[in-house]
Amino acid sequence: MKRGILFIISGPSGVGKGTVSKALLEGSGGTMVFSVSATTRAPRPGEVHGREYFFVSEEEFERMIEAGEFLEYMKVFGRNNYGTPRRYVEEQLAMGNDVLLDIDVNGAMKVKENCPEAVALMLAPPSMKELRRRLENRGTEEQEAIERRLAEAKSELSRMGEYDFVVVNDDLQTAIEECRKVLEACKLTPAYCKDFVSDLINEDF
Amino acid sequence: MKRGILFIISGPSGVGKGTVSKALLEGSGGTMVFSVSATTRAPRPGEVHGREYFFVSEEEFERMIEAGEFLEYMKVFGRNNYGTPRRYVEEQLAMGNDVLLDIDVNGAMKVKENCPEAVALMLAPPSMKELRRRLENRGTEEQEAIERRLAEAKSELSRMGEYDFVVVNDDLQTAIEECRKVLEACKLTPAYCKDFVSDLINEDF
Repeated sequence: MKRGILFIISGPSGVGKGTVSKALLEGSGGTMVFSVSATTRAPRPGEVHGREYFFVSEEEFERMIEAGEFLEYMKVFGRNNYGTPRRYVEEQLAMGNDVLLDIDVNGAMKVKENCPEAVALMLAPPSMKELRRRLENRGTEEQEAIERRLAEAKSELSRMGEYDFVVVNDDLQTAIEECRKVLEACKLTPAYCKDFVSDLINEDF
Repeated sequence: MKRGILFIISGPSGVGKGTVSKALLEGSGGTMVFSVSATTRAPRPGEVHGREYFFVSEEEFERMIEAGEFLEYMKVFGRNNYGTPRRYVEEQLAMGNDVLLDIDVNGAMKVKENCPEAVALMLAPPSMKELRRRLENRGTEEQEAIERRLAEAKSELSRMGEYDFVVVNDDLQTAIEECRKVLEACKLTPAYCKDFVSDLINEDF
């Protein structure tokens, strides 16, 4: 059984991460799953523990931090907390499933620290003007919020060099294809071919 | 103009490097060229300076070593010498062409030292038994030479972990496709998107 790949996808708000992630998952034929986060917020109607989130108490969240059970977590005093439990990811990877993790740049780098074989991909807009257009077309936010998001985007994009791959989401289908190629190429690295390599070297001839 | 990729392909004798390399070049539509080596051996009939090899004198070869003009070279006393001139590779990369370099594991690692952005791919046989079968089917070598090549193969393959990618040449078309995917994925790394990234970050919005 070949181990799966932990595939981190980051990118500024409005770039199309959700759409690309959904397409990758749906196109994977069940070999890719979304990472399930733990959160201290209450479940909303229809949300299922272990599907949308692992719903945990503040005390349990705290215990998980202490026990080193998170690949990354975010704790802001007085707010709901979120974290990526290592165990769920590990179990899926060991089963040979790829795990998709949609996370911001700080979270991404934290995960790479804890799991160096993870592959981090930055989804970038073709231009800042186009990103502005996409945020404005959503029509869900005030102008001030859009300006703030654009400033945040720039600061995120300036850390592109810390990622393993950069895919520009200009044409959606091209971006999805490129993400798939990256994933396939990552399965051809020595780390993911360990078992084959060691069998080959130990083979009598 | 996007810089090309220096694509190193290594693999044991008999694995099919020549066939895969030829297919990559021919399928590239002229965007990939073979690296042209320098050699101190005399040209054979039909060989053209700058096409098959750069034919240089022993003195010139020596001067090129001293001047640091090789990405790697091999010098065996009393034999013909071979080396990879940095300038040809650099010129092609700057023109946006990918450069294919077919070289052994020591040469490959030397090139990566001198050019860290180079991508090194190991072409591996599906099994040692299959490698033996391929060497025997060539019918060009004595049994003793075949045994020696198999022992060499094992020692080369044991260094697979030093490569960026491993492609198994079981089915030829699959192997070629996988090499292409690797190459395309490598064009999606931050190092190869530098100009785009810096334009994006400097864009007014």
